[in-house]
Amino acid sequence: METRITELKRRLAEVEDLKAASHLLTWDQATYMPPGGAAARARQVATLGAVVHERATDAGLGRLLDDLSAHTDALAPVDADLVRVARHDFERAVRVPDAYVRRFSAHVAHTYENWGKARDTADFAAVAPDVARTVDLSREYAAFFEGFAHPADALIDVEDPGVTVARLVPLFAALRKELVPLVQAITRRPAADDGFLTGDFPRRRQLSFGRKVVERFGYDFTCGREDLTRHPFTIAFGIGDVRITTRVRPEDPRDALFSTWHEAGHGLYEQGFDPALDGTPLAAGASSGLHESQSRLWENQVGRSRLFWEHFFPAFRKAFPVALERVDAEAVYRAVNKVVPSLIRTDADEVTYNLHVMLRFDLELALLDGRLQVADLPDAWNARMETDLGVVPRTDADGVLQDVHWYFGHVGGQFQGYALGNLYAAQLFAAARAHRPEIDEQMQRGRFGALRGWLRDHVWNHGRRRSAEAIVTAATGAPPSPGPFLDYLREKYGALYGLTG
Amino acid sequence: METRITELKRRLAEVEDLKAASHLLTWDQATYMPPGGAAARARQVATLGAVVHERATDAGLGRLLDDLSAHTDALAPVDADLVRVARHDFERAVRVPDAYVRRFSAHVAHTYENWGKARDTADFAAVAPDVARTVDLSREYAAFFEGFAHPADALIDVEDPGVTVARLVPLFAALRKELVPLVQAITRRPAADDGFLTGDFPRRRQLSFGRKVVERFGYDFTCGREDLTRHPFTIAFGIGDVRITTRVRPEDPRDALFSTWHEAGHGLYEQGFDPALDGTPLAAGASSGLHESQSRLWENQVGRSRLFWEHFFPAFRKAFPVALERVDAEAVYRAVNKVVPSLIRTDADEVTYNLHVMLRFDLELALLDGRLQVADLPDAWNARMETDLGVVPRTDADGVLQDVHWYFGHVGGQFQGYALGNLYAAQLFAAARAHRPEIDEQMQRGRFGALRGWLRDHVWNHGRRRSAEAIVTAATGAPPSPGPFLDYLREKYGALYGLTG
Repeated sequence: METRITELKRRLAEVEDLKAASHLLTWDQATYMPPGGAAARARQVATLGAVVHERATDAGLGRLLDDLSAHTDALAPVDADLVRVARHDFERAVRVPDAYVRRFSAHVAHTYENWGKARDTADFAAVAPDVARTVDLSREYAAFFEGFAHPADALIDVEDPGVTVARLVPLFAALRKELVPLVQAITRRPAADDGFLTGDFPRRRQLSFGRKVVERFGYDFTCGREDLTRHPFTIAFGIGDVRITTRVRPEDPRDALFSTWHEAGHGLYEQGFDPALDGTPLAAGASSGLHESQSRLWENQVGRSRLFWEHFFPAFRKAFPVALERVDAEAVYRAVNKVVPSLIRTDADEVTYNLHVMLRFDLELALLDGRLQVADLPDAWNARMETDLGVVPRTDADGVLQDVHWYFGHVGGQFQGYALGNLYAAQLFAAARAHRPEIDEQMQRGRFGALRGWLRDHVWNHGRRRSAEAIVTAATGAPPSPGPFLDYLREKYGALYGLTG
Repeated sequence: METRITELKRRLAEVEDLKAASHLLTWDQATYMPPGGAAARARQVATLGAVVHERATDAGLGRLLDDLSAHTDALAPVDADLVRVARHDFERAVRVPDAYVRRFSAHVAHTYENWGKARDTADFAAVAPDVARTVDLSREYAAFFEGFAHPADALIDVEDPGVTVARLVPLFAALRKELVPLVQAITRRPAADDGFLTGDFPRRRQLSFGRKVVERFGYDFTCGREDLTRHPFTIAFGIGDVRITTRVRPEDPRDALFSTWHEAGHGLYEQGFDPALDGTPLAAGASSGLHESQSRLWENQVGRSRLFWEHFFPAFRKAFPVALERVDAEAVYRAVNKVVPSLIRTDADEVTYNLHVMLRFDLELALLDGRLQVADLPDAWNARMETDLGVVPRTDADGVLQDVHWYFGHVGGQFQGYALGNLYAAQLFAAARAHRPEIDEQMQRGRFGALRGWLRDHVWNHGRRRSAEAIVTAATGAPPSPGPFLDYLREKYGALYGLTG
């Protein structure tokens, strides 16, 4: 048994190493690769993806997992978890043929390059044939699996195991029912003044201030780094090398700051896994939703809180003395919580954000069902923007071309995690404050030790040893629900906008 | 036959893709990787190295090559070359067991990390056990091959195919016999004044000036980039993505400038392969010596020429107006050609440089022969420095720890290419000027089209289709010899130092 678990770990470490190399190809493609490298990189990503898949589906690995699964009682608990998770991954992976993996990674590498150009020229038509093929490939992928009621379920299950369309559709309908009137109530009130956040904000100072804050959060730059990219993301090559990315607009610091804090939340989660899990498939987030809850918690519950700005305002003003000459911490707090129906998901405030996400989720379902054709996607996008948010993009660059997801992965399963993340974040943050009352007082001093410690113990440490639902339930004493999120919004924005409940 | 050559290219492209991913792990380790990533990276490099080796030695590939080798008449000339080179690589690779490859790459990844620390603290003892193991592993590697007279021959053959200890020992003895008196004659004359090249040279301006020059050389930044590292190198992920690196000392611009021009020479070679060779093993340098000839040619024959500085001096002074206020182009030309016996190979002038190289070459032989123990390496190094150059490093950081080579690869076969490169560079440059008389006049205007065109046609295009010796012979009309190099030195330095021949 001892020998077999060692052999399993060796094989799994090999797969993790190859995945890390593959992640590095991706990271480099999105940060430093010169344009001339694109064609070869597409081929390299496809080749390495195929090799990963080949190793991850090796028959010997399958036999080893079958063997070990029959004797999990004899294993240490963490090893039993490893066998269970690895076997789940194996059983998923063997259903996907090598040739599909190769075709799909070559396809998305090309699509990603084309998307960059299409977005620059606001030309959705240029990338539409790629997206149509992505939809076909996504359906093809879903068809490799049995027992799912909807094609999207097979895709959702990759990111948020156990979550289904049947469960999300009513959940999202209920959320939307609460959010739309809340947005309307807020937009009837005078808007917060955020004019002073547009002006001259030197790039280096934005980066430097953003990084000082995430160092305070506890993000460890000796085990990570931050680089510039088009669409910020976090990527890890092991627990000791977890990298974040951002983008900077010199005329508005919000893009760089909140994306840095958001990605650092993802980064803290990945840096916070139990070190004993490194090099195994347990050193990963429990689900897309739980991962997103960590980024949203640090971005919003922390970075958009009054306590945060009471502490960090002096440093913020010191970085940008001209732009911020005439304002105070409270003005910044109000400005960064301005609620306004807008075009770009990643710029959206906490109240309207989930409306952007649910729009995408519903369009994914429609594309997979065949109810919507790719050529009609921009119109469908714009119509739903009009209905839900009352605003319509002037060009597709601010519409259907804004997110990387459909140009770098499957259509389907890509967005529900953002909404689940918001719900989990509010629920976890409320529980953390209830369990560790010193969190507020620390935050007011720019300290986050208590919050970080609680998250490490209750969320980060576990990696994939438990499901997202089990982690949230154990941490908060209740299964995931939208209640804490809606309470959080009503309390915060009720006070900010003088609403009467 | 058509099907088999297509299948061969598919298999070889796969190996090239995996090598590119492996190169990216290395590039990242030497440029951007945070310290926390080191342990996992060592494992990743080893895993990917093993996968590359496994694919490169696949029995099916061997059968395909045997098949095709029997019918090269039926192939296009370039495909016949591909079969020949790929078969040579295959036959070498199958002699090296998978387990060795895995052990060796894990070992050098660790050694590389330890070397960084040992160099910072000038503590050779800290890395000596690693080097001793490297020597053992190098001997073990050599023993996989038959038919070589000396263990170093097996290692030299990897880098400079066909070159042997038996040929290099007399060649280097003859070179040394000419160089030592030349250095002595020069050092009896007054030294050039290079004091104005020490001072305040802002980092960004050094990088910017260095890059402007390499753009003029023809290095294409849309198919490459330059990053900072500890020990500059060039690395390619395909003909469309060839990256150079440099390091900057704010008190002296020579390190950054000449390393940038040197690496750009390597880069021009790799960017200049026939595009039809991309993704095949023919898209590589013909030998270490020929690769080095391209870097040295642009660094020295171009970058240390009077014509070069006559053109670029105004831009150089504009970048550093304070430091260069009182000097002219001629003063810079003399300063960058100051001959002084010094400690660091990469800083050495053209005249003393080969003495540094031959020192290392001889120490490699002695270590492999067992005539020298690793513990005695610093003393042996220092004694030879005393004998040949009359200077001795104060600490091993400026001695045996200065070069990356023995800490990132085999001991043996690593240095002869530098000396061969100097010989080839002088021979090729003389031939280019003889064939294309407009080269001088263009250089004086900061233009390099004629030189670039000649090198592309006679050297770069071929990739590995011909041997280095064949390329030099065809390009210059004579087999490689030290004559043109010694003529170049005598003419240039005779004039600079007023020597009478």
